[in-house]
Amino acid sequence: MTERQRLGVGMVGYAFMGAAHSQAWRSVNRFFDLPLEVDLAAVCGRDQAKVTAAAAKLGWRSHETDWKALLRRDDIDLVDICTPGSSHAEIALAALAAGKHVLCEKPLANTVEEARAMAEAAERAAAAGVRSAVGFNYRRIPAASYARDLVAAGRLGTLRHVRAVYLQDWLVDPEFPLAWRLRREIAGSGALGDIGAHIIDLTQFISGQRVTGVCALTETFVRERPLPAAVAGLSATGLSASGLSATGQGGANGQGGAKGRGGATGTVTVDDAALFLARLEGGALASYEASRFALGRKNGLRVELNGSEGSLVFDLERLNELEFYDGRVDDETAGFTRVLVTEPGHPYLDAWWPPGHALGYEHSFTHEVRDLVAAIADGTPPTPSFADGLQVQLVLDAVGRSAAGGSRWTHVED
Amino acid sequence: MTERQRLGVGMVGYAFMGAAHSQAWRSVNRFFDLPLEVDLAAVCGRDQAKVTAAAAKLGWRSHETDWKALLRRDDIDLVDICTPGSSHAEIALAALAAGKHVLCEKPLANTVEEARAMAEAAERAAAAGVRSAVGFNYRRIPAASYARDLVAAGRLGTLRHVRAVYLQDWLVDPEFPLAWRLRREIAGSGALGDIGAHIIDLTQFISGQRVTGVCALTETFVRERPLPAAVAGLSATGLSASGLSATGQGGANGQGGAKGRGGATGTVTVDDAALFLARLEGGALASYEASRFALGRKNGLRVELNGSEGSLVFDLERLNELEFYDGRVDDETAGFTRVLVTEPGHPYLDAWWPPGHALGYEHSFTHEVRDLVAAIADGTPPTPSFADGLQVQLVLDAVGRSAAGGSRWTHVED
Amino acid sequence: MTERQRLGVGMVGYAFMGAAHSQAWRSVNRFFDLPLEVDLAAVCGRDQAKVTAAAAKLGWRSHETDWKALLRRDDIDLVDICTPGSSHAEIALAALAAGKHVLCEKPLANTVEEARAMAEAAERAAAAGVRSAVGFNYRRIPAASYARDLVAAGRLGTLRHVRAVYLQDWLVDPEFPLAWRLRREIAGSGALGDIGAHIIDLTQFISGQRVTGVCALTETFVRERPLPAAVAGLSATGLSASGLSATGQGGANGQGGAKGRGGATGTVTVDDAALFLARLEGGALASYEASRFALGRKNGLRVELNGSEGSLVFDLERLNELEFYDGRVDDETAGFTRVLVTEPGHPYLDAWWPPGHALGYEHSFTHEVRDLVAAIADGTPPTPSFADGLQVQLVLDAVGRSAAGGSRWTHVED
Amino acid sequence: MTERQRLGVGMVGYAFMGAAHSQAWRSVNRFFDLPLEVDLAAVCGRDQAKVTAAAAKLGWRSHETDWKALLRRDDIDLVDICTPGSSHAEIALAALAAGKHVLCEKPLANTVEEARAMAEAAERAAAAGVRSAVGFNYRRIPAASYARDLVAAGRLGTLRHVRAVYLQDWLVDPEFPLAWRLRREIAGSGALGDIGAHIIDLTQFISGQRVTGVCALTETFVRERPLPAAVAGLSATGLSASGLSATGQGGANGQGGAKGRGGATGTVTVDDAALFLARLEGGALASYEASRFALGRKNGLRVELNGSEGSLVFDLERLNELEFYDGRVDDETAGFTRVLVTEPGHPYLDAWWPPGHALGYEHSFTHEVRDLVAAIADGTPPTPSFADGLQVQLVLDAVGRSAAGGSRWTHVED
Repeated sequence: MTERQRLGVGMVGYAFMGAAHSQAWRSVNRFFDLPLEVDLAAVCGRDQAKVTAAAAKLGWRSHETDWKALLRRDDIDLVDICTPGSSHAEIALAALAAGKHVLCEKPLANTVEEARAMAEAAERAAAAGVRSAVGFNYRRIPAASYARDLVAAGRLGTLRHVRAVYLQDWLVDPEFPLAWRLRREIAGSGALGDIGAHIIDLTQFISGQRVTGVCALTETFVRERPLPAAVAGLSATGLSASGLSATGQGGANGQGGAKGRGGATGTVTVDDAALFLARLEGGALASYEASRFALGRKNGLRVELNGSEGSLVFDLERLNELEFYDGRVDDETAGFTRVLVTEPGHPYLDAWWPPGHALGYEHSFTHEVRDLVAAIADGTPPTPSFADGLQVQLVLDAVGRSAAGGSRWTHVED
Repeated sequence: MTERQRLGVGMVGYAFMGAAHSQAWRSVNRFFDLPLEVDLAAVCGRDQAKVTAAAAKLGWRSHETDWKALLRRDDIDLVDICTPGSSHAEIALAALAAGKHVLCEKPLANTVEEARAMAEAAERAAAAGVRSAVGFNYRRIPAASYARDLVAAGRLGTLRHVRAVYLQDWLVDPEFPLAWRLRREIAGSGALGDIGAHIIDLTQFISGQRVTGVCALTETFVRERPLPAAVAGLSATGLSASGLSATGQGGANGQGGAKGRGGATGTVTVDDAALFLARLEGGALASYEASRFALGRKNGLRVELNGSEGSLVFDLERLNELEFYDGRVDDETAGFTRVLVTEPGHPYLDAWWPPGHALGYEHSFTHEVRDLVAAIADGTPPTPSFADGLQVQLVLDAVGRSAAGGSRWTHVED
Repeated sequence: MTERQRLGVGMVGYAFMGAAHSQAWRSVNRFFDLPLEVDLAAVCGRDQAKVTAAAAKLGWRSHETDWKALLRRDDIDLVDICTPGSSHAEIALAALAAGKHVLCEKPLANTVEEARAMAEAAERAAAAGVRSAVGFNYRRIPAASYARDLVAAGRLGTLRHVRAVYLQDWLVDPEFPLAWRLRREIAGSGALGDIGAHIIDLTQFISGQRVTGVCALTETFVRERPLPAAVAGLSATGLSASGLSATGQGGANGQGGAKGRGGATGTVTVDDAALFLARLEGGALASYEASRFALGRKNGLRVELNGSEGSLVFDLERLNELEFYDGRVDDETAGFTRVLVTEPGHPYLDAWWPPGHALGYEHSFTHEVRDLVAAIADGTPPTPSFADGLQVQLVLDAVGRSAAGGSRWTHVED
Repeated sequence: MTERQRLGVGMVGYAFMGAAHSQAWRSVNRFFDLPLEVDLAAVCGRDQAKVTAAAAKLGWRSHETDWKALLRRDDIDLVDICTPGSSHAEIALAALAAGKHVLCEKPLANTVEEARAMAEAAERAAAAGVRSAVGFNYRRIPAASYARDLVAAGRLGTLRHVRAVYLQDWLVDPEFPLAWRLRREIAGSGALGDIGAHIIDLTQFISGQRVTGVCALTETFVRERPLPAAVAGLSATGLSASGLSATGQGGANGQGGAKGRGGATGTVTVDDAALFLARLEGGALASYEASRFALGRKNGLRVELNGSEGSLVFDLERLNELEFYDGRVDDETAGFTRVLVTEPGHPYLDAWWPPGHALGYEHSFTHEVRDLVAAIADGTPPTPSFADGLQVQLVLDAVGRSAAGGSRWTHVED
């Protein structure tokens, strides 16, 4: 074990995603046997005082205030980008050019153009052995991975239906302030790109099929909101949005912040909710809904697939479970089986606890970096790739165009 | 009680719906105190032997083989139409003209034109005290009625989202025969008109808001199916489809029938699945899905509403329950409450059993005829009216036009 | 069909159980093909005005005020006893002596001595072709019947555990009046005999094994309660308790009645809650709990069985479902399957509606009389027999003795 | 942050519990602001090679092969005992005598005598500022902590009923080998002390009331089992049982190990299942069941409390949820509310992720050490104390005596 090579990681951003990724990098060698030993080398943010505190709190051995400096460090092998979407392209392109492996949070970028440039750069870098992946972490929830396995093994037969929702409720209050996630110039889009992107990726991953066309409807229910107390800091650059606080519900995750001040308001420039119908390449019909106005749904990602031989349901609020309907069972004992995805034979589970012991949200990141580290060590291309991230961006783009064009049927570009 | 006036009922059709209605007519006075005593006067069907057997089995004191004869009988005050949609208009128009009250199964008709003629006739008849209603029985499930009460009382606040699915799986097997419900000339449409109509009505009823526009997608997954063994009998008229057997799964409910014979096949001329997005008149976004290919879903009608103050979920497979999220509760104890809708204070419940004792599917019909009989006695217009049935038909029509027109946004006609 | 023999039924009592039985007798021939046609001949109660009203309301063609008169009528073939337990023995013994078939509500009697006399009389009567059964109706809920089928087919393997609760909450309020169900001289016992009897019978039925010994704990949490406003009528005889109102929550089911008057109180002489551990004859361990103080549980009967090959859960509040764990399934897809017991292959279901259409509480009675009528027609002994009822009484007796004797292990007498 | 004092931790044992505790010690400062910085100083086990590997794998900076050496180290402030129960007393007494704080896994000991000695030693040590706690980690699951808060705030009113089960199924297979958890000399008891102890502690914690008396039933269904392949290593000392492998399902957690070899078998000397009824000091009735033969239940800990004002349900398989019935809500909207215990206002949650993001099993340990570290820093007595551990042991003892004595009612000693 002593001769194991180290993998130096530099993380840009230290808010919600930064805290989650830190826990993953810190834990991965403690549970999984990997040929590389992760070194939490440096965390990066613009504010000297805050990034110093974040490094201590999150357990990084050094910090930087300029991500370009991070890229120049020899002890950094991989750059983990946990900033808002507006800065993904610039950092990722530079990191790949510097020969660093890249893990980039989702969505890959805020525009198709940026995403395409990133995918092309990633492909070039791959030829030189530089790896890249986009952080659609929900693929690595064991129940979701196992759902993919069941589909790939033919247990669903011919797929007929996919229905996916991702429902939250943190914008129901009209006094909730105009956080960075509500501003197009930083976030790219609203519910669509933030949580809609997750269900697009997850359903394509589980089904093994891509969305080929859509008709869509989007809405902004509350168009003016109070400016957050500290909004000035946000306006200059998205990067600051990633470093306000290290954990949880704070303003830094773009969901929080102090209530408005003095009656000043600003315009919401992204969607509150986005719905679309779709066709998958194998002929299935699909429906998608992403909303931040679904009162009572906190993290309500729910995916159902119906095939000719079986059906599946995954619900993020009960992420240790998978419902499976096995069409081969006789009619009298058939039904949706609540599978506890905590058996040693389930994906990733043999590294953890005995049967029936629940994992949490953060384990998806541990599994994500486990797979990425293994791919780097093996010299194989990790997934989801930047090309996969681009493809999700193309679906988001088609949704936007359909919604803007009277919901007309819109093909997803290649 | 002895001086109570009788209400003579004549029912046309005696298959699945006929059996359900018979139980309702037979039971309603046994549980509810009503000013009229129902008389199961006559059941009508074309086949002499079968209708004779049906009368005995279902408890009707006489039978007819010609519905026009039924309309001429003085002891018939109300005609209950339980035939396929293709015959609704002709029978209903004649019954209203004959001064009979009419209860007509849903959907009201197979076309907007028929439905409009029926609604106009119903309005004229109402002026003469002749009553009519369309059989959207799910409104009368206590949990659904109570959901409406909660919305009407403002407990949901401003409505933001409606999502409704009605999922079944009886067509998954490609060898399932070409029953009458798969033939446009009899059934009008497929999943859309059969079960989609239910969720359109139910969501409009609960929300108190109408659908104003849609974008839609429909599909027929299996386009050729074996002809049913006895298909000849079906081809002449839809009426015969309503009288093959009195109960359950038989061919008569249009879902069953013997497997195909000798390789002869026919073309499915209706949709297997229909999905659409919609806007409601109050500004909410909605999504709808009706399918007969959702493996594992037997009678999977599920409706969710999210408002600014509360949310609701109703699931037909658990029809004695309603999930309610009360936004006024503090964050720490808020959540979806599983309300057992079996309290004496819930709609219809004081007529039945102590708290916690479940009702079934058929009770929705007993409540439907209870309300209709009460309205007839009171001289008030029953609901849902033929005008309500027409409005659902207009939504179905808009869905069909959008699906045929590249999913473009399509307004629902007035 | 016209030559079918009639079966004249006379029912004693017309409260909660009377209303439920009436619906069953009225419906059974409408859904099931039986060689006998039920005739709702007469209902019997002491109060002339009330029984007259009950006959009209519940659909009986005549009435009697003296159950002995009922027994003398030639048009009565079967006596259905729906009175409190204190009168069961007298009526049943007389009815059997008069050559009438008997259906007796549970518990069979209030004491072992009465129950033993009844079982012996039933055995003698059977020799003369006179049939008798005790009304443990929950056996006839399709999911419970099917649970029995699965156990009998060996799908659970060797049984290890049974756990059963029947939880209600209608006594939580200390101001709830002293209804007849709280008085030992009428009801025999409290939660134990009323609802505990149900779970004893149901678990023995499903498991196919009898309880051989118990250790028990009982409690009366609230020992003084207000006298009901109309309590005088109750004190003379239990019979009047069965005829105060025909439906639901009224005083007549022993759960309701007006709140106390003028501060007068009486002593509760039965248990509010009874818990016991048990061994079954096949070696399984079991636990039982019956309570009327379990706030939030309205009709919370829940039974779980664990065997070496499978497990089962039945919950009365979701009576159309059965959870089944199939131990033969591989670890990765095993789990509790929510079986919708609404398929035509499930017990009783082919008489009703298509898959996924829920039945209710009252259908258990329809199935109960269906099986009884079929047994009478076939000349076979119906179940559960009076001997089965006696055996449940012996378990109740052992529970009472254990609770009174320091919870010591107590064998159930043969 | 730099001046924060360190807390040196030395952990004895490195199997299932050792892996869980390691993750907790490693994570606690990364999420919680605490006045002490945890130092994973040393892990201890008898086998030099294995403990070396464990230290590297689990992230401890040194290792020891003799726990007495660990106690002599100045850089160790706290000893964390993760060995089987048979060694708890010796190590804990020595650690306290050496002035080390102690965290001891549950059950506190294998006998009342040992536990009493430990509680007395802990009380003496406390006078000198040396802290001790027993590892009933389930108290620190946020939903369980919040359940305690609701009860303490009076939201349940007068408690009437407690029912608790802890069901597993890993012994169903009779070929499962004779692991150390099945041997009385190492484990003390079977299901009773291993998982029964958890529900005793958890229900007493949530209810705030102690068990005062019990009647009990225990059983060993399979009395002979194959010897595990490596059983020799187990026989010498329980300590080796804690160091066979670092994670999961391996033999080291006492649940696994290779299948038997060559037909050699041994006698199971502990209970497979234990059931008991109980009274709590406030007058509530309770039932408990612990079993390793409940097929389909993997980690099926479920606790329900019913009071006069509210009810609660907690289920470990859905540990992010709490069901709460609020008796103050009107009858029509009352019901069990599924509370997602993931709000910032819930215990421990503000340190983690946004609402709706699930935690897992291991977080209970992180919270456990958070509270312990905070108590050490504050100089306050941590809970659950060794006295609490002794009291659980006294309940286990009463259960054993009742089961051995014909289930007679047995008072729990003070």
